[in-house]
Formats: sequence, structure tokens, C-alpha cells
Amino acid sequence: MQPPRSEPIYLDNNATTRAAPQVLEAMWPHFAEKYGNPSSLHQLGLDASDALGTARAQVAKLIGARSPERIVFTSGGTEGDQTALHAALRAHPKRRRIVTTTVEHSAVLEPLAELERDGVRVDRVNVNGDGELDLEALCAQIGDDCALVSVMWANNETGAVHDIARIARECRERGVWLHVDGVQACGKIAMQVDELGLDFVAVSAHKLHGPKGVGALYVGPRVEFAPLLRGGPQEHERRAGTENVPAIVGFGRAAQLASAWLADSDGARRVAQLRDRLERGLLERIPHCTVHAAAVARVPNTTNLRFDGVSGEAVVMMLSGDGICASTGAACASSRHRPSHVLMAMGLDAAQASSSVRFSLSRFTTEAEIERALEATPVAVAGLRTLAGSLAN
Amino acid sequence: MQPPRSEPIYLDNNATTRAAPQVLEAMWPHFAEKYGNPSSLHQLGLDASDALGTARAQVAKLIGARSPERIVFTSGGTEGDQTALHAALRAHPKRRRIVTTTVEHSAVLEPLAELERDGVRVDRVNVNGDGELDLEALCAQIGDDCALVSVMWANNETGAVHDIARIARECRERGVWLHVDGVQACGKIAMQVDELGLDFVAVSAHKLHGPKGVGALYVGPRVEFAPLLRGGPQEHERRAGTENVPAIVGFGRAAQLASAWLADSDGARRVAQLRDRLERGLLERIPHCTVHAAAVARVPNTTNLRFDGVSGEAVVMMLSGDGICASTGAACASSRHRPSHVLMAMGLDAAQASSSVRFSLSRFTTEAEIERALEATPVAVAGLRTLAGSLAN
Repeated sequence: MQPPRSEPIYLDNNATTRAAPQVLEAMWPHFAEKYGNPSSLHQLGLDASDALGTARAQVAKLIGARSPERIVFTSGGTEGDQTALHAALRAHPKRRRIVTTTVEHSAVLEPLAELERDGVRVDRVNVNGDGELDLEALCAQIGDDCALVSVMWANNETGAVHDIARIARECRERGVWLHVDGVQACGKIAMQVDELGLDFVAVSAHKLHGPKGVGALYVGPRVEFAPLLRGGPQEHERRAGTENVPAIVGFGRAAQLASAWLADSDGARRVAQLRDRLERGLLERIPHCTVHAAAVARVPNTTNLRFDGVSGEAVVMMLSGDGICASTGAACASSRHRPSHVLMAMGLDAAQASSSVRFSLSRFTTEAEIERALEATPVAVAGLRTLAGSLAN
Repeated sequence: MQPPRSEPIYLDNNATTRAAPQVLEAMWPHFAEKYGNPSSLHQLGLDASDALGTARAQVAKLIGARSPERIVFTSGGTEGDQTALHAALRAHPKRRRIVTTTVEHSAVLEPLAELERDGVRVDRVNVNGDGELDLEALCAQIGDDCALVSVMWANNETGAVHDIARIARECRERGVWLHVDGVQACGKIAMQVDELGLDFVAVSAHKLHGPKGVGALYVGPRVEFAPLLRGGPQEHERRAGTENVPAIVGFGRAAQLASAWLADSDGARRVAQLRDRLERGLLERIPHCTVHAAAVARVPNTTNLRFDGVSGEAVVMMLSGDGICASTGAACASSRHRPSHVLMAMGLDAAQASSSVRFSLSRFTTEAEIERALEATPVAVAGLRTLAGSLAN
């Protein structure tokens, strides 16, 4: 192994991303020059309010919302998801059922578990071994006793993309609102939230080279909204609290950059090619290696592989020593040290799930970085397997 | 009047503050160099996690919490306040009453109004004409059917400081938890949250030269906590969502600077002297002018004055044209264009409340700026009074 490099090879972009230089440039003046409170009546306040308007339009454009007023800025994906669940139950006091999937992010599953303890019925639709949602089962669950259907657009661990267009049609036909956790899709694939007729879509800036601590919730035209955070009249009475102006401005700029990147078909192709090269290279070099969700549509930047017989955590640690950042799955699940609920839902046993590693690229990923990962990962896996073998003997 | 200056005279620090240069310096590397997710197992993640620990200790020290683990980072004061209300009701399912005051910030009053619609009884204790809380009435309300008492430390509009030590003693004697909205006290006066035996204290970074979008909730030792935002296990399972590392680091540095400022007795004295000079100067120069809450203890940076016969909004606009930023009261209430509920609670009628202006200083305020405000404000008030007089004739 080589010594740690000062500039790490960052292949953990589904956990969080580096803020783009243009994002920092846009944010910077709003900390100590244009630092007004957007609600203030004086010039510094008006300037801050204008900056919010620009960012709102940029984020709306990225996700295909024609009216910027559909965008509510939040503190991130978790708050957005929970706001959607809250608003749907408030709007439908007699509908005490929510339909979701077994592979959602904990930002959806944990508040739902809490609601279940409070008497809301939660039905969780499963995926098959490829990570593909059982759409027939989902459709069978959608009825007029449902306050909401909540399905993620792209899975954070495997990158598998769900058929949101189809699910949205089914929900509309049955008169049930649809919330989409769009955190891992946003900035990676095209999102046309108005066209698809979605009701809520939660996104987060720090997954697309924007700052941490800011996200957005799209609120569709048929929604009667109820805020989760109450207090001041910010965000058109939809989210109280002094607006995080620098971060919102940074999010807007990140959205603008992502829109440009998505419009250039070479951008996504290049990332997918690098991802495929990493994936094929690892399959060639490492025996007993499997790619999860390889058979279904995935976001271009994500691959999740199983290296039988080794601990995914140990691989991640070995790679970290080599200056390469990867992950065992959801970053926020790492500290819980539990096998991935997503991979278990796909039929893996705990040992298989725990021997998996996720690599997630970004538009900043280079060929040279992929080459280094292709050198280091087989060495790490082989080393761990040898160790495991010698321990077994 | 002089033309607007490029560098405004900012006397609206209770709305939000300029981030200190040292805060920006501390935050900067965490956007694009040390940008890891603190939950990640690789080096960038571990570095981010370390940075959170440092900031947690800095914020704990500022408010007098001996253990940094009592600090839960939030997205700001509003989320902190609402989390405290939520946790108290969750922990006491049979106690369906909350005691508060008529002069709380909307971040407390609005969620309480919503809880009231859901069947929680809310008792609001009044203040007298000086802004002083009726402690006898408050104590009479505290009983074992109360899930929580919620009282702000310092009022955002008048700067009046409530007797939190006394209220805390009364709450403890009666076995009722106390939440303190400390947003406007934090960084302005000493807070000894452990020593006073408080249960929750919400604070916000952007009121003390830290960044927007981050706050903290102190959670006392006897609290059985229930998170408002659920999902990942961040903040020891007390607040889900990827941690806003740059902002938290900035908050920590701002807290450290505020601790140093508070330790230097000249700091607060200097701000209070500037505030008193402004106040006295305006009283001397403007007839029919009254200072609100002048008879009670106030935070050193705030003065709120009534200029009879003029609109406070118009004064703020005139001053803005002159490059001076002031406020009619709570920034977030400005857009609602309602007379201040705080001044109304103090016995003013709507016209009197609407003719009031708040000036809030900071440690960056200079003598020269106060002199400029002393020149411009009487001109603005006299001009508006002349206009009102000529319209009346």
C-alpha cells in the first residue's frame, strides 16, 4: 500500500460531495457582506430576499418545476421527507395508512416507524433480487384509505432507479398523493416533477456539490400544505426559521451547474463509463465478486459490489489507508454497524450484505482515480481473504 | 440625507449578524477540502467527526454545559424550540398542558397554537408595562399536569431579561421541565445552564456572528429525549440528517469568540455604553419618544423606542435610505405587517406598537456609527411627523 495522499480519491459521493468552486464563490459574499435577514425591511434584507428568489428559480429549473413558488427550502433531505409525511397526514385526518418500500432511506423509514407506534398503518412493498420494486404489489396497496405513497427515486446504496412515472400515474388514478425521496436522483438524472404530477419531492444540496445543511421540498399544486416547522412566516408560511441564505444561494448555484451538466449528454455518459470501467475491472480482477442491481436502471455514478468472504467495513478501512474513500452503504448507517436493510431486502443474508462496498463517483472523478481504485481494491480484498483464510486454519 | 453608503450601519443584530472573519476562516476548509460526511468510516469522515466534537465543546462552554454531550446541533432556533416542545409532550403523554408567556418568539407561540388545536392546553402568562413577567401568576400555573414551562431568556424585541434562575427553581420544586428560548441571550449575557438546572435551552449561531442555518439545543440530565427529526443516528440519535459540518464548525468558533468577549467585562460594558448613548441621544433630540422596557434588566445591545405619531416601518425605510439598518421588531414578523404582540402585551395600543423601532448593536458597532444614527433618526422622525401633520391639515 502507498502512504495516504494529501488529496484523497473520493468515491463516496452518495454520502456527501465536495462543494464546487463556483458554489463557494456564490455563497461567500452572503456571510459577511450581504448578511441581512431576508425578512428585514432595510436594504440588506431586501438584497437577501432577492438572492433567495434567484436560488429558488435555479432549484426549480433543475427538478422541472415551472413555478419557483413550488420550492420550499429546508435544512436537508431528512427534514423534507418528514415534512411530506407530516403534511400528508395532516391533510387527510381520516386516512391512517401510508404505503412505502422496504428499501427507503432511514429518513423515511424511521419517522414511519414512529408513526406506526402512533397507530398509522404502514405497508412496505418489497423489491426483487435485482433491487426492482414489485410494482404490482405496490399498486395493489394504493387505495383511498392511504394518506400517502412514499417511494425513493433512486436508491442511495445500489443506485437502482424506480419507475416514478408509472407509480405517479397509479397514484393519480387512485387519488392518492405521492412523495418521492429524490435525494440520490437529483443532479444525476433528469427530474420532471411537474410533468410527472408528483406531490412532494425532497432533495438535498450536499449530494450535488452544494453545501450541507440545505435542501428543498417540492410541493405540488394539489397539495394542501401543513408545515412541520412552525414559527415565522418564512417560505410563504411553509417553513419557519431564518432562511439559511448563504447555503440556499450555494444550492441555487449547484443546481444551475447540475442543470448544465445534465443538459450536456457527454457529462452523464462520461461518469457512467468511469463507473462501468471500475465495475468491470473489479469483476475481472476479483474472484467471487458480484455487482448489486446490475440488471436494472441505475444512476450513472453508483456501483455496489459484494466481495464474498470479507467484511465490507474492513475493505473500506483498508482503502482509506490507501487514500481512497468508499463506503459500506448509507453513511449514516455506518455508525450503526448493521447489515444493509436494502441488500437484505434484495434477498442477501447478513454475511453477504456485510461483505458489500459502494463506490459512488462524481463529475470530478478522473480516470486516474479509477485506475488507482482498480489497483488498490483487489489488493485489499485479496489481503483480507488471505487473513481470513489463515485465521480459519 | 446622505446617499446610501456601500458599508451600511448595521443596527439590526437581533435579526441576524455579520459572520466574524475568524468564523469564516474556520468554516472555509470544510466546504471543499475536509468535506467528508461525519458518519463515513474513511479518513475524510473521521476528520469531519473530530471537527464536530471540537465545536460541541465550544458551544457547551459558552452556555455553561459541563458535558458537550448535552448539546444537540439543530438547523436553528426554531427547530430547537419545537424539538423541546415535542420532546416534553412525548415524555409526558398524560400531561396535556404547557405554560408559556405572551411575549415569546413566534418559534414558540406558533407551534403552541398548533398544539392547542390538537387539544393541548396552553396557558400564557402576561408581562407588565415594563416587559416584566408576572412571576406570581407564572408560579401559580406550574403544576404536575404541565408537560413543560417555556420562557424566553431575553426578549428579542425589547431586550428584557427574564428571571430564569427563579423560574427554574420553581419548576424544579414542582417537578416540571423548563425550556428556555435562549436565542437572544446567547453571546450577550452569561448563561449557566447546568448550574441553573435547565432542561432545554435553544440557541442559534447567526445571532452571535456565526453562520445562519445552525443552532443548538441543550438537553438537561433529567430529560428523556424524543427527537423531532428522525432518520439516521446523527447527534447520538437525537437529530437525524447529515450534520452541517461547516456551519457547526463556524458556530463553535463563534461561541469561542463570544465566550472570550463575555469573559472580558469591558466588552459588554462598551456595547451597553453605546446603546445607552444612542438611547439618551434619541430621547434628548426627539420629543414624544419613549424607551420600552427601560426599567428592567436588558441585554446590553438592544433598545426599542416609540416615536409617537409616526410609523415605525416608515422610520426603518427612511433610515435604510440613509444606509442605516434598524427594525420594527422581530424581523420575521416584518413581512406580516402586524403590530408587535410583545409591545401589545406590555399594554400599548396598535398605533403605539406600530410607531416603535428597535436598534440592536453588536461588538462590531462603532461610536461613529452611533453618531450617524443619532444624526439621521431625528431627521427621519421629524420629517415623517411634518408629513403626517401636513396630510392631516
